[in-house]
Amino acid sequence: MTTALSEYEYVRENVRIVPDFPKKGIMFLDITTAVKDPKSMQIMIDFLFEKLKNNNVDYIAGVESRGFIFGAALAYKLGIGFVPIRKPNKLPAKTIKESYSLEYGTDTIEMHEDAIKSGDRVVVIDDLLATGGTAVAACNLVKRVGAEVVAAAFIIELDPLKGREKIEATGVEVISMLNYDLD
Amino acid sequence: MTTALSEYEYVRENVRIVPDFPKKGIMFLDITTAVKDPKSMQIMIDFLFEKLKNNNVDYIAGVESRGFIFGAALAYKLGIGFVPIRKPNKLPAKTIKESYSLEYGTDTIEMHEDAIKSGDRVVVIDDLLATGGTAVAACNLVKRVGAEVVAAAFIIELDPLKGREKIEATGVEVISMLNYDLD
Repeated sequence: MTTALSEYEYVRENVRIVPDFPKKGIMFLDITTAVKDPKSMQIMIDFLFEKLKNNNVDYIAGVESRGFIFGAALAYKLGIGFVPIRKPNKLPAKTIKESYSLEYGTDTIEMHEDAIKSGDRVVVIDDLLATGGTAVAACNLVKRVGAEVVAAAFIIELDPLKGREKIEATGVEVISMLNYDLD
Repeated sequence: MTTALSEYEYVRENVRIVPDFPKKGIMFLDITTAVKDPKSMQIMIDFLFEKLKNNNVDYIAGVESRGFIFGAALAYKLGIGFVPIRKPNKLPAKTIKESYSLEYGTDTIEMHEDAIKSGDRVVVIDDLLATGGTAVAACNLVKRVGAEVVAAAFIIELDPLKGREKIEATGVEVISMLNYDLD
């Protein structure tokens, strides 16, 4: 476990903290500095691969846009398909939609209605777990077509925001690599 | 070559044509049906990998959002870093920007100023080459920090829109897998 731990800490050193983005008072965890580092990129994708390789997963569903980065590389490595979950009006064919609450107002995400089918085993991927609102909505899209959410997986988890509790309350396992004591 | 050709044609059969998206009269080439197919996903990434593996590439720069799907999987396979090129105000740290003309008005893309450095060898990736406006702007971002654009690579090329000519006129090689006679 010491090897793995030090690998994760190597990645943590490549995650950049940008103060006051997108607004004053927010400490933004920037994963672009980790994905541009070849060793970090390998460690992050290999982490997800090792966690999921024995789970008979049919599809990786990545949440726009940073979830595409981890989700697509993971799907390729697993030898399975990738399904994008996108912001409204980006997907060209017929979609199903799910709305969720933000601090002010609501947001909506979409998935192609025919992207996955009943009985498929799906992992939802995003870069970061905050309050879990987007992730729960993404899991709901997968469940609505009768598919099973095997896990929701993230590189970063912001512990104080308790997104893990919100997702686990829906019966979905949460996987994350790096925990931060930030909100 | 017959094997490769039939592999490409397998992928072509998994690209969906959606009429009238995003507006009336446009035939949209939907790659979500190709990336969700495991075999197509492997063929597409392996195509890019084989074309680029001997070019000493330092970074894959993927254009938001579909360029993230192919770019990140390719960067992982090559064992190099991935750099996102994004729409305005999405990247948290200091960026450089490049604007380009659309049919009506202009659009802007950004890259972190410190994402790549002078002398780096970079490949720009997007899913589809149309008029080439976005791709040339993305190449300009890379060149402005003193890096070299090894190639601009795409899965799909819309031949009648002559994006290839526009990119090649800037001294950049164009790579594509599937040609379409659509505009």
